[in-house]
Amino acid sequence: MTHPAPPFSLPPASAVPPSANLARSNFPPGSVALVGAGPGSADLLTLRAAQRLSQADVVLYDHLISPDILLLAPPSASRICVGKRASRHTLPQGDINQLLIGFARQGQRVVRLKGGDPFMFGRGGEEMRAVLAAGIPCESVPGVSAALGAAASLLLPLTHRDYAQGCCFVTGHRREGESALAWTADTGPDETLVVYMGLGEADNIARQLMAHGRAPDTPVAVVEQACMSGERAVCGQLAGLGRLIADHQLRAPALLVIGEVVRLHQELAALRAALTA
Amino acid sequence: MTHPAPPFSLPPASAVPPSANLARSNFPPGSVALVGAGPGSADLLTLRAAQRLSQADVVLYDHLISPDILLLAPPSASRICVGKRASRHTLPQGDINQLLIGFARQGQRVVRLKGGDPFMFGRGGEEMRAVLAAGIPCESVPGVSAALGAAASLLLPLTHRDYAQGCCFVTGHRREGESALAWTADTGPDETLVVYMGLGEADNIARQLMAHGRAPDTPVAVVEQACMSGERAVCGQLAGLGRLIADHQLRAPALLVIGEVVRLHQELAALRAALTA
Repeated sequence: MTHPAPPFSLPPASAVPPSANLARSNFPPGSVALVGAGPGSADLLTLRAAQRLSQADVVLYDHLISPDILLLAPPSASRICVGKRASRHTLPQGDINQLLIGFARQGQRVVRLKGGDPFMFGRGGEEMRAVLAAGIPCESVPGVSAALGAAASLLLPLTHRDYAQGCCFVTGHRREGESALAWTADTGPDETLVVYMGLGEADNIARQLMAHGRAPDTPVAVVEQACMSGERAVCGQLAGLGRLIADHQLRAPALLVIGEVVRLHQELAALRAALTA
Repeated sequence: MTHPAPPFSLPPASAVPPSANLARSNFPPGSVALVGAGPGSADLLTLRAAQRLSQADVVLYDHLISPDILLLAPPSASRICVGKRASRHTLPQGDINQLLIGFARQGQRVVRLKGGDPFMFGRGGEEMRAVLAAGIPCESVPGVSAALGAAASLLLPLTHRDYAQGCCFVTGHRREGESALAWTADTGPDETLVVYMGLGEADNIARQLMAHGRAPDTPVAVVEQACMSGERAVCGQLAGLGRLIADHQLRAPALLVIGEVVRLHQELAALRAALTA
């Protein structure tokens, strides 16, 4: 595997200062690191995530992890795609857990590379419990969650003193057999609502939010391929969410952002566009 | 300024692959980068954040940014502390905006370094609007928010299929003259609630949440100095939150984490402790 020239220079290793958490810089053989790959771009991994990847003997990674990011592991490392999309699990969760445990028992340094952050919709908690219960050391290396990556690239602040005093992250993907998106009853107009994996249920989500009192003209943004090369965002209103998605042929992976901050996004994006015009 | 030896090695620059977002790798003179410094540890900055810092001519930073992180800027860069804590603003926001604009107009590369992520409780939206409105290019580089950093180091997944279908981030710091924490009416038992800057209002928050239906025995964790060398977490129940904070003499900066995932944290932390015993 060749390593292409980087588009930017990293600070020299000698410029990287001692961390306050030296104990966490260890990645011993026979252990597992759950590593957040961030929102898409390789340069949005944390330094610690890049360091763990550079030491990996085995990398188990999800769909949607960019090939660029996998290049951060040594050429000799095994790279195994273990899944998983909302509707297509390449491997059942139990099998993934057993792979993590099995490789660690062989004395390997195992990286479990997950989009975004391992502890936000990543099922990292389940994997960590299985690995620790098997007597194997396991750490989590946090990552930039997809919504925060999208917020930065689109100029879409998720909180703002005048628009939103908080932000709720929820999932639009329902477990089999579940009949309701319970959270739709539990978010208020003072918070920005970000729905992960919400495209398939968007129309239903919009209807339920309006039934629970959200104004039909609440601004919404749908972000397709957040932080990836095909990123695009389309803005509209809650009442027209289903039609917006259909008209623009928006496809997963996508985030829904619902709330007054979308107006601020539109203002900031217009200012940026005027600068580059 | 001397650069101490790093506690870990970074991947060589030649191993860092091209990002999918090459256009965003530019940091031209006369522009401003709002940069998320992450939750505390220098190695939890993103590669992009470290790269922007390494090119900075001026760094305007908040209180609570670790000196280790400031070492990532060139020794020749100006470093200016501009505030700000909940109750002690070193500089008014308007003055910070004017500094950003002024330095950029001199042709400097200006980094505005903010704890966590610029667009989550960071007032990054306000700064970006001011800078763009002055005709100056401005970007945001996302960061790991404090709650996600704390979740990783404490083994506290913020979502989990069995415990929480979502996560809400709110602020406990009230603007002057505001009489209510409106969000306390708007979060449900299916979501984890994370309160930033909530220590001073913790007793009030707990009472209002219970008045709106949260069970008094809802598990809570108070995280002091998340991701910093003095990090500690104390667990209890919602009904005893004020007393918990008093008994353990917990001080700001602190996060409150409220919800069933705290039970999972206790289970994972016990498993980890058993491994290292």
